[in-house]
Amino acid sequence: MASMMFTDCSSSTATARLLLLSRSRLRSDRSSIFIRRFVGPHPMGTNSLRTTVHSASSSSHVIKATMSIESTAKVIDGKAVAEQIRDEITAEVSRMKDEIGVVPGLAVILVGDRKDSATYVRNKKKACDSVGITSFEARLPEDSSEHEVLKFISGYNDDPSVHGILVQLPLPSHMNEQNILNAVSIEKDVDGFHPLNIGRLAMRGRDPLFVPCTPKGCIELLHRYGIDIKGKRAVVIGRSNIVGMPAALLLQSEDATVSIVHSRTKNPEDIIKQADIIIAAVGQPNMVRGSWIKPGAVVIDVGINPVEDAKSRRGYRLVGDVCYEEACKVASAITPVPGGVGPMTIAMLLSNTLSSAKRAHNFQ
Amino acid sequence: MASMMFTDCSSSTATARLLLLSRSRLRSDRSSIFIRRFVGPHPMGTNSLRTTVHSASSSSHVIKATMSIESTAKVIDGKAVAEQIRDEITAEVSRMKDEIGVVPGLAVILVGDRKDSATYVRNKKKACDSVGITSFEARLPEDSSEHEVLKFISGYNDDPSVHGILVQLPLPSHMNEQNILNAVSIEKDVDGFHPLNIGRLAMRGRDPLFVPCTPKGCIELLHRYGIDIKGKRAVVIGRSNIVGMPAALLLQSEDATVSIVHSRTKNPEDIIKQADIIIAAVGQPNMVRGSWIKPGAVVIDVGINPVEDAKSRRGYRLVGDVCYEEACKVASAITPVPGGVGPMTIAMLLSNTLSSAKRAHNFQ
Repeated sequence: MASMMFTDCSSSTATARLLLLSRSRLRSDRSSIFIRRFVGPHPMGTNSLRTTVHSASSSSHVIKATMSIESTAKVIDGKAVAEQIRDEITAEVSRMKDEIGVVPGLAVILVGDRKDSATYVRNKKKACDSVGITSFEARLPEDSSEHEVLKFISGYNDDPSVHGILVQLPLPSHMNEQNILNAVSIEKDVDGFHPLNIGRLAMRGRDPLFVPCTPKGCIELLHRYGIDIKGKRAVVIGRSNIVGMPAALLLQSEDATVSIVHSRTKNPEDIIKQADIIIAAVGQPNMVRGSWIKPGAVVIDVGINPVEDAKSRRGYRLVGDVCYEEACKVASAITPVPGGVGPMTIAMLLSNTLSSAKRAHNFQ
Repeated sequence: MASMMFTDCSSSTATARLLLLSRSRLRSDRSSIFIRRFVGPHPMGTNSLRTTVHSASSSSHVIKATMSIESTAKVIDGKAVAEQIRDEITAEVSRMKDEIGVVPGLAVILVGDRKDSATYVRNKKKACDSVGITSFEARLPEDSSEHEVLKFISGYNDDPSVHGILVQLPLPSHMNEQNILNAVSIEKDVDGFHPLNIGRLAMRGRDPLFVPCTPKGCIELLHRYGIDIKGKRAVVIGRSNIVGMPAALLLQSEDATVSIVHSRTKNPEDIIKQADIIIAAVGQPNMVRGSWIKPGAVVIDVGINPVEDAKSRRGYRLVGDVCYEEACKVASAITPVPGGVGPMTIAMLLSNTLSSAKRAHNFQ
């Protein structure tokens, strides 16, 4: 595994390789560290890796190694924040039911038999259940017509017990995705991908009805960790419609000075190095190196990339777009992968569904 | 006038003041220089100021001065480009009329008696006449109701001879601007300000029906002068809904790496200095200094700011957001003010109206 990570993460030295090996042994301890950090910053401003690694071996080589892996970054614990948000949503859903007898509802449309899509849909249903949101589900066979899908959307658009509609992507190739997504009522577009929502997000003084879930989750993490955005230099890496572009618009709406780096950018590291806040959403495992990060910057890593890992039961493990092992020594705060932005996406979907129900019933 | 410009443009030295005085004497020559430059770059890569100023005086002091005012920038002549575009539109309008008997139509709604608004509307009408586009005009008194304005919009929405609708802003304060603008049919929103158009502009793979006229004019100038955008660093100064933000989205859609600088940006000069392309749209006379510009950068100056000028018949003259006298010595190309972006805005409005008519009648 050490050499696997070595391959992932750099032209590191043998010391670094050793470090990573030591680090990997500690992985199972990490979640408890996260929880503590979310409650409040570590009094030493470093995590407890050093001590633990130190105790793992008494050789001078390893001691030297542990000195240099000291992480200065606060770990931004998306799992814990997402749990907190779900608790808040549970309370609000319950209050809404008690006061006006309305339960928010989320409908998901799944076409075809893709296993990954089925898993996502199941997770969304579970998440709804856990906070008290009613979930509706339409499963259509792979060879359904566009017209049949549109009929379901139309039904959910008209159903007052449905406050959010999600069409699980990708759709079968014979369907026009844009036609289908545009059919979702703007008032129920909890994904926030409708161009009208994106346009309102881009324009000053025009609030969107919904903000796309993943970028909303990124900004929520910054807010909940008390990280200032106003006046800061921010770099978004990646310009996708669903993460990079709306993340940049959100950062700008909060008065950051934003640059978007993408596949056509020359010397991206020169721009990234200037950022106080980095949002990486490019889908390239470990692309952003420690040396690309300004000391003290905040790193939000949206990437979830499987990389081969013979030691893992599944044969792979997940890494971000940022080389965590390097970045955590430079950044002031960083999201891990997994356990960073990932859990926030579903939490924001639940939040959007609740907001939609509140708006529909004018419930404050 | 020299001291006026001195005050506008910097902490210049006495030499600079002299320069500006010399330069101002040459102002009347500039238009001819522009025309030549539009036809093709000057063979020397400099404009002819040096020679002319040199001949104005034989003192060594002035000679020294003229050495340092040498402008390296090609002047981007918006007036000439706009004329060329109008000629192209005239030809297309005529071809459309001949082939399918349809004449594009633009309707303008003016509420109230503001002199500046009346002038703008008159200019738009003249511009339509000059290219053969039919213009429609509704003038309503200041105390009209929102309902009355909406009735006119609705009429133009339904009128097949109208392909573009403009509501002249600002509207009287008792009207809800957003309600009124949103009432314009998306197919006739030639201003391109509808959030649906802005959303489509922001999203990859979703073309807007119309692009807002001023930013479209900026990009058109870059295209017509053969200035590469792809892979370039671009900085947009200002983030207004009508210029800065859509200009940034357009640059990004052409694969530039874009940063937006605004009132909350700290040390804007540090970011601006990195740009290969600068679009300044902030409304601050002479804000961008020569020292903020990377040598060889291209400068598009959207600002049109009146500054006091006792020597002018009107008591003021117009300057841009960029200190032209300094910038032209550093940039590789620059738009003047006036005569740069200004004339392009109406040309793009005519272009949008023509496109709308072509789309409505499926005319290629």
